[in-house]
Amino acid sequence: MERIKATYFIETPLPVEKAAAVLAGEQSSGTFVAVPGETEELKQRFAARVEAIRPVETVSEPSIPGLNLNGGAYHRAHVEVSWSIENFGYNLAAMISTLQGNLYELTQFTGLKLMDLEVPDSFATRFAGPRFGIAGCRQLTQVTDRPLIGTIIKPSIGLSPAQTADLIKTLVQAGIDFIKDDELLVSSGNSPFEERVDAVMRVINAHADITGKKVMYAFNISDEIDEMLKRYEYILAAGGTSAMISLNSVGLSGVKKICDQGQLAIHGHRNGWGMLNRHPLLGIEFPAYQKIWRLAGVDQIHVNGIQNKFWESDDSVVRSIEACLKPMLGGYSILPVVSSGQWGGQAPETYRRTQTTDLLYMAGGGIMAHPDGPAGGVVALQQAWEAAVDGLTVAEAAQKYPEFGNSVKKFGSPA
Amino acid sequence: MERIKATYFIETPLPVEKAAAVLAGEQSSGTFVAVPGETEELKQRFAARVEAIRPVETVSEPSIPGLNLNGGAYHRAHVEVSWSIENFGYNLAAMISTLQGNLYELTQFTGLKLMDLEVPDSFATRFAGPRFGIAGCRQLTQVTDRPLIGTIIKPSIGLSPAQTADLIKTLVQAGIDFIKDDELLVSSGNSPFEERVDAVMRVINAHADITGKKVMYAFNISDEIDEMLKRYEYILAAGGTSAMISLNSVGLSGVKKICDQGQLAIHGHRNGWGMLNRHPLLGIEFPAYQKIWRLAGVDQIHVNGIQNKFWESDDSVVRSIEACLKPMLGGYSILPVVSSGQWGGQAPETYRRTQTTDLLYMAGGGIMAHPDGPAGGVVALQQAWEAAVDGLTVAEAAQKYPEFGNSVKKFGSPA
Repeated sequence: MERIKATYFIETPLPVEKAAAVLAGEQSSGTFVAVPGETEELKQRFAARVEAIRPVETVSEPSIPGLNLNGGAYHRAHVEVSWSIENFGYNLAAMISTLQGNLYELTQFTGLKLMDLEVPDSFATRFAGPRFGIAGCRQLTQVTDRPLIGTIIKPSIGLSPAQTADLIKTLVQAGIDFIKDDELLVSSGNSPFEERVDAVMRVINAHADITGKKVMYAFNISDEIDEMLKRYEYILAAGGTSAMISLNSVGLSGVKKICDQGQLAIHGHRNGWGMLNRHPLLGIEFPAYQKIWRLAGVDQIHVNGIQNKFWESDDSVVRSIEACLKPMLGGYSILPVVSSGQWGGQAPETYRRTQTTDLLYMAGGGIMAHPDGPAGGVVALQQAWEAAVDGLTVAEAAQKYPEFGNSVKKFGSPA
Repeated sequence: MERIKATYFIETPLPVEKAAAVLAGEQSSGTFVAVPGETEELKQRFAARVEAIRPVETVSEPSIPGLNLNGGAYHRAHVEVSWSIENFGYNLAAMISTLQGNLYELTQFTGLKLMDLEVPDSFATRFAGPRFGIAGCRQLTQVTDRPLIGTIIKPSIGLSPAQTADLIKTLVQAGIDFIKDDELLVSSGNSPFEERVDAVMRVINAHADITGKKVMYAFNISDEIDEMLKRYEYILAAGGTSAMISLNSVGLSGVKKICDQGQLAIHGHRNGWGMLNRHPLLGIEFPAYQKIWRLAGVDQIHVNGIQNKFWESDDSVVRSIEACLKPMLGGYSILPVVSSGQWGGQAPETYRRTQTTDLLYMAGGGIMAHPDGPAGGVVALQQAWEAAVDGLTVAEAAQKYPEFGNSVKKFGSPA
């Protein structure tokens, strides 16, 4: 029988073997009591199995509150656990409850993070996955062999549909590939969703009629199921190609329902992610997280960016990009969305470390506040990526490309 | 214009006023750039407002990784922030992205927890809330003036429908009010959902035909939207009165969709909660969390229990029960589910600290492993609560009530 595997980074005052057994027991049939007709075979069939334990280190202070044993030694280890597909079948919600459920509350752990997970091949026959992925998003935006260049409408909230459309006009004329709503905006007092779609798509469609290039706009539809479906249809009818969902706010079942409509590229925003990941020994790491959303069918997912304005390290961002680009079950292509304080100066380092242009590369001020105007900003970003692929440094690129050079003068060299 | 309020417990190396301003700015119109036609009025209309700051203490080590300033002083404070209803309207997903979004990733914070939230009166006209709540669950189970006594089918996973039904038979004859699936079980290799519903409801309906009392069974329907709706209808058709959902695994939009069906009492399981709450300075506290689910329409929600087997303190459990029992918008009644290592011995302390019997009080081993059998176990729990309301100690109750006395002999006195 096929098995689902999960790797955890744990910290425990118990011997790690004992703690791993507690985890496996709590999340399966461990508390078996004698029941008439129950057999050892039945127990084994549903028991979670500890597959491997790799001790890391012992520390003297617990990472999060938990069991306090005499001695004050807390052992850290990587632990691999597996479950039979028979336990929950092809049910992502039940899989999450099994892999990430009550175990975070076990007092036997003073740290527990889900690092990665692995689903068996048969999942590919049950989950359609992203309908567009990298190739589909490239096709919709007609962008080959460089990252899609994108931006977010700012201010986050407050612009009217007409003001938004004016900005869009500037941006599409500047040659942008992708634009998105901020995650704070769905339908506000002065920007009702439908009016915004109308105003934005009028500009995007007119531009497409002239140039043949339809800029992708990810409208934020996050809400209840029926509202999201209504907005989805509205975008489709208006000629739009993408919808955005706040993954953590809407939740797995709602996101899956929207992805299953299959006609718009789904932009997955991970706001709230810090709550799930920021502590080194609590929550979930991105390699596991992104797999869940690929199974749900999300086409694009945020990964933060090199030298970002948030707390996350470059190493972590690089791991996230790599995780997205690694095929899952032979496919399930998802486009990593690089965002947060990006302006092109980070392109050489991003390429050096990831060796890919399969990115949606988002810049805000880097485009709108460019000395040569937004058109200069978009060109500068394209140049930054050309230079990055050619192996130029920021200084070399600044010398070769005038618009990128002006970016560097304005935004300064990255650290 | 009405405003939504949120209270945070923050830690920051910046002056707390400055950090609070960063939070409010990031989560609204703070990064306003000059836009044609933009006015100061417009900006003020959508800007989040820092309503109050209450400094707590300064510590020398950061709670979670973040901005490292010279000096190593990290200031803790309670901060109240408000947003106009105009920012996101009656959209719970957008509200969550605003109150719990990117702010957890801000490097300016070395700790951030959403402690509570407050929605304006007009929410009551837009969100129906729990359709059953405390009164409805009492009515369905015919239990007055004592807690509903419940249990969870164990082993969590592995029993066949027939084995489950055998257990149910024992439990309903013992006088139980409520039974639930474990959160690990939805539909397993040897317990397909529909077969389990058939087997279980045959027993429950037969018992109801004889006694007039229909035991509430919360079948775990957690899955994708369409599957959940199908299972919901199946329970209804079989005469069931409740469905269980793993709130965090299914997510807000999916849970809301199910609650909106309005015909079954929704048992909200909070597995995964530890990930959101276990760190004292990251995530969300239960008073805020339970409000979101009440707005979604959940009728019963887990609160852990006094002297539980998890890591949580009694103080925290008491606060959670109090939060559930506090009316929201004048109603939105939700039944707190007390669970985890309970056997009746904790009843006096639970009552002493909460002064309520409006609880669903769940015990596992306390019922099934009672020396007088399950019937003795259920009676012992009812006795424990009678004694608790009468102000007896565990020792006094053990002397007065033989079945409860036998529980104490078997399970020992609580700490």
